[in-house]
Amino acid sequence: MDIILSKGFNATGVEAILKQANVPKGSFYNFFSSKEDFGLAIIDRYSAEIDEILHPIYHDELSPPLERIKKGFETLIKRFEGNDCTKGCLIGNLSLEMSDQYENVRHRLEQSLRGWSDVLTILLHEAQKDNAIFSEVDPEILAENLISSFQGALLRSKVKKSSGPLHNFIHLYFDKFFPLR
Amino acid sequence: MDIILSKGFNATGVEAILKQANVPKGSFYNFFSSKEDFGLAIIDRYSAEIDEILHPIYHDELSPPLERIKKGFETLIKRFEGNDCTKGCLIGNLSLEMSDQYENVRHRLEQSLRGWSDVLTILLHEAQKDNAIFSEVDPEILAENLISSFQGALLRSKVKKSSGPLHNFIHLYFDKFFPLR
Repeated sequence: MDIILSKGFNATGVEAILKQANVPKGSFYNFFSSKEDFGLAIIDRYSAEIDEILHPIYHDELSPPLERIKKGFETLIKRFEGNDCTKGCLIGNLSLEMSDQYENVRHRLEQSLRGWSDVLTILLHEAQKDNAIFSEVDPEILAENLISSFQGALLRSKVKKSSGPLHNFIHLYFDKFFPLR
Repeated sequence: MDIILSKGFNATGVEAILKQANVPKGSFYNFFSSKEDFGLAIIDRYSAEIDEILHPIYHDELSPPLERIKKGFETLIKRFEGNDCTKGCLIGNLSLEMSDQYENVRHRLEQSLRGWSDVLTILLHEAQKDNAIFSEVDPEILAENLISSFQGALLRSKVKKSSGPLHNFIHLYFDKFFPLR
């Protein structure tokens, strides 16, 4: 997962994976029918890791829904900063690299992004009921846009080698775009 | 450019490029010192193509600044739809695939994204002076965020194989987030 986060899927050979994992040559195809199959497993593993980070934040009933969403993104930004603004999000990286070439991978990425969006939809709907954000737009559309814009800010931050665009994303969405003005 | 837009940089071999371009084997290194060098040339060529599309739209003095920005994005969305929601933006694709591995490429991508952002900054500043958008945020920050969120919506649309997220991006930014409410 670490190599693919750094170099992408296509630039990572099976041999490099085996070497990093310290696993004897030849055993790869005992576990995975193809490199694509391995890609699917990596997506599942990465999604589970991120879920584990975000789940307690999103379910912290002591914090208002919008604050939970914000804290979730801030936690992911800290992770990115901990990697010196490299790597980014595996889901975002593979979305651009693999969607057009591997239909199964595209479906799995869609599933992962939709799962995230579903959780944020519920929280944004609650935020609308609390009048914490404007309510004339379907929370599902807001949730998908919020995640997309986060992925875009991550892309920009990776090129800039600075988390500035991510912090501006937080400021704009949570202080300017979403609140009732 | 076409192959790299579809398959990414690392999955595209020099041989495939020569075959598509119908150029004899061996001549590649007469023109490019390395595949990375070729990558830089592709970025320049793609940026010039996009500039050619956007320049007349951004400089159409008959249209208000915010309308010009919106029309620019809508034109890029039509292009994406013309490719059956595949390929996307070469700059965005290579940003995630190459930034961590090729420092020269990262600089060139940074240049390209900053150039776009500079043009939008001027237009957004004008829009602020016209009271067409809220004015308490630096237009440079808004411009960068707008482009990032477009790239994110493109990423999401590529995974979804639907331009829905891009049209929601247009609606949210131009009808909800930016206008004075």
